[in-house]
Amino acid sequence: MEFMKMDAKALQKYKDELMRQYEDFQSQKLKYDMSRGKPCPEQLDLCADMLNLKEYKTADGIDCRNYGGIDGIPEAKQLFSNLLEADPDEIIIGGNSALNMIYDTIAGAMSFGVSAGEIPWGKLPKVKFLCPSPGYDRHFAICELFGIEMIIVDMNSDGPDMDAVERLVAEDEEVKGMICVPKYSNPSGITFSDEVVDRLARMKTKAKDFRIFWDNAYCVHDLNEQGDKLKNLFKACKETGNEDRVYVYTSTSKITFPGAGVAMMASSKANLIQIKKRISIQTIGPDKLNQLRHVKFLKSMENIKEHMKKHAMIIGPKFTAVLDILDTQLKGKEIAWWNKPNGGYFISLDTLDGCAKKVVAMSAEAGVVMTGAGATFPYGKDPRDRNIRIAPTFPSLEELTKAIKVICICIQIVSIDKLLENK
Amino acid sequence: MEFMKMDAKALQKYKDELMRQYEDFQSQKLKYDMSRGKPCPEQLDLCADMLNLKEYKTADGIDCRNYGGIDGIPEAKQLFSNLLEADPDEIIIGGNSALNMIYDTIAGAMSFGVSAGEIPWGKLPKVKFLCPSPGYDRHFAICELFGIEMIIVDMNSDGPDMDAVERLVAEDEEVKGMICVPKYSNPSGITFSDEVVDRLARMKTKAKDFRIFWDNAYCVHDLNEQGDKLKNLFKACKETGNEDRVYVYTSTSKITFPGAGVAMMASSKANLIQIKKRISIQTIGPDKLNQLRHVKFLKSMENIKEHMKKHAMIIGPKFTAVLDILDTQLKGKEIAWWNKPNGGYFISLDTLDGCAKKVVAMSAEAGVVMTGAGATFPYGKDPRDRNIRIAPTFPSLEELTKAIKVICICIQIVSIDKLLENK
Repeated sequence: MEFMKMDAKALQKYKDELMRQYEDFQSQKLKYDMSRGKPCPEQLDLCADMLNLKEYKTADGIDCRNYGGIDGIPEAKQLFSNLLEADPDEIIIGGNSALNMIYDTIAGAMSFGVSAGEIPWGKLPKVKFLCPSPGYDRHFAICELFGIEMIIVDMNSDGPDMDAVERLVAEDEEVKGMICVPKYSNPSGITFSDEVVDRLARMKTKAKDFRIFWDNAYCVHDLNEQGDKLKNLFKACKETGNEDRVYVYTSTSKITFPGAGVAMMASSKANLIQIKKRISIQTIGPDKLNQLRHVKFLKSMENIKEHMKKHAMIIGPKFTAVLDILDTQLKGKEIAWWNKPNGGYFISLDTLDGCAKKVVAMSAEAGVVMTGAGATFPYGKDPRDRNIRIAPTFPSLEELTKAIKVICICIQIVSIDKLLENK
Repeated sequence: MEFMKMDAKALQKYKDELMRQYEDFQSQKLKYDMSRGKPCPEQLDLCADMLNLKEYKTADGIDCRNYGGIDGIPEAKQLFSNLLEADPDEIIIGGNSALNMIYDTIAGAMSFGVSAGEIPWGKLPKVKFLCPSPGYDRHFAICELFGIEMIIVDMNSDGPDMDAVERLVAEDEEVKGMICVPKYSNPSGITFSDEVVDRLARMKTKAKDFRIFWDNAYCVHDLNEQGDKLKNLFKACKETGNEDRVYVYTSTSKITFPGAGVAMMASSKANLIQIKKRISIQTIGPDKLNQLRHVKFLKSMENIKEHMKKHAMIIGPKFTAVLDILDTQLKGKEIAWWNKPNGGYFISLDTLDGCAKKVVAMSAEAGVVMTGAGATFPYGKDPRDRNIRIAPTFPSLEELTKAIKVICICIQIVSIDKLLENK
């Protein structure tokens, strides 16, 4: 039943029982790390064949072992243009990290500006980014490092609060960017609606050099047959005459190997000219052998989709297990609310206000490490201290079951403490 | 005989004969690209076994396929600390490009400063670097991109003109750095003497945050048994209490695969703290599988040295061929001077003043493409227009022989034209 409707005595009695369960878990000396969205070893085994590369030349004879080529080998651009939903000549294939490409784009914008005619952002008194939150902690860390002021925009079930976004970009020239994960959002799991995408494409921005950093990390990462569909923002921006507005990023980190994948981006020709000017000075070129390794293994977009079903078969049951336990343990108690994503790597859970930090700390004391509470908000500060990011993919099903039970116990204990304070 | 001592008529007659030879080469429609220091396919074949990786875990159980670790796997740090001549805990293993690490260090210095207490260089009215020249064109391109004013320092046969270096760093606080290839220098092939290294280590700099970017790209790249020895600048800096002065870089680009090698750097603990703070936000980590691939193949420092002898057996004869032709065609004519390097990837040739651009253009018209004249100096401007970089490694011996003959013919023709003008 609802905890709110229980009296102090009943709550205390309930808590005593939960404390016994908590201590029992504590005595088991668990040691689970659920802090990051890491694939599990069984997922990585899916790509075992990639370790043995039998060729080193592209179809048109480029020796991938040697120097040369800054934006990717032709067959990688051809294959991955499908992931980015752009033309092969609108994309750049980079190193092993899309995060690094995002960092480099922002660093380049700070030092040299986003286009030849604009003032480098680092020369301006202030630069602000809109940060739909909860969001991806590593995005926020990049902004913070460069001194970019982050403005929280609420993340609704269909994407960012577009009324707020439209107002902020229209009235403030210092708002130069927005950074987000639009599909199976990290951590809330939601996918931006078509209407949100359309409004992002057509909204009027006071800053001429406003850019959206569109980190489409989970573009093919469905957990079930239905999956979510994300409208193509780059295409929508072209249709509204704002084609320079967006940088689209993705990688194979959660398709093949997280540490040794291939990262990529798409953008307008004008944006790519500016970016290639930097890249051609920054490096002699990305690892072409790893690109070839990916093309030979992944083969086609159809094959990538089939391959992703194998990932879903491994991690889908883990999501189901988490959701089942949350339902069993917390449903109807009105102390926690969570999403049921169709893809991605996270389940986002909201507690009562002011409880998240305590829950995460208490879980850690029983050996269950989660992403730090607050991490999903700019500056690591969740204004309502209620969001918890659950990353179900890495632990085994058995470990995961125990870990989520611990978390559920902690949520209930911390919630009861809060309710008792107010009684 | 010396061209200077020939009269106009004799020179003209000599030129007519050279023009006939030039036209003969032109009619052969040659198409050789000697613009970059690229290993040849036979060198790359030495590492064929690297394409098949049989393991994915480090000795202590790290799964190299997955996320995690920002500064390198333990066995890579152990092995490559020998290349960098530093302790394993003083190094960072990065991606596939040392140039990219240099770029990132400079970009970081511009945005955040080289240490927590110093003003970011990008916030200063002016930043200057000392650039021993001729030098590496890609170093100069990075400086130019960031608006760093490059000051040419003469490169002597034992390294940079240290009187000039000491004076400039002592008197000008805006001089924040020096960037160079200290062993088998690109392009002059010289190695800095012990005295130069000692003076660099102990010199007084007006700028507290002065840094030397020590690109030791050819640390084990001997062409013959004797080889050059480069004194360890990092160690010398520690001994003079200037341990934060130097960033040491190298890579396996010309040990294994130029496009898919492993880059690395060494520096003081204080410098590494500042750099790791940035890297931990910039990326989730480098490609650990490629590090493991390298460790499994290269095994030990002794084995690396044996492996480098195989490279020398392939490219050594090419250097010998070039030097033989230069001797035969140009020696004693007093129109060109060149070095005989003990290692590295280049032969640097000086023509009479004002001839290099014409020689490179004329060679290109006969199908022999070299690095653009001037590229070996800051801003692409050779003040005396005389330096030409010859990269003998990539072409076959047969192609190379023809190409150098073409270049020798062009040097003689352009020199005669210059001498005739003055007669």
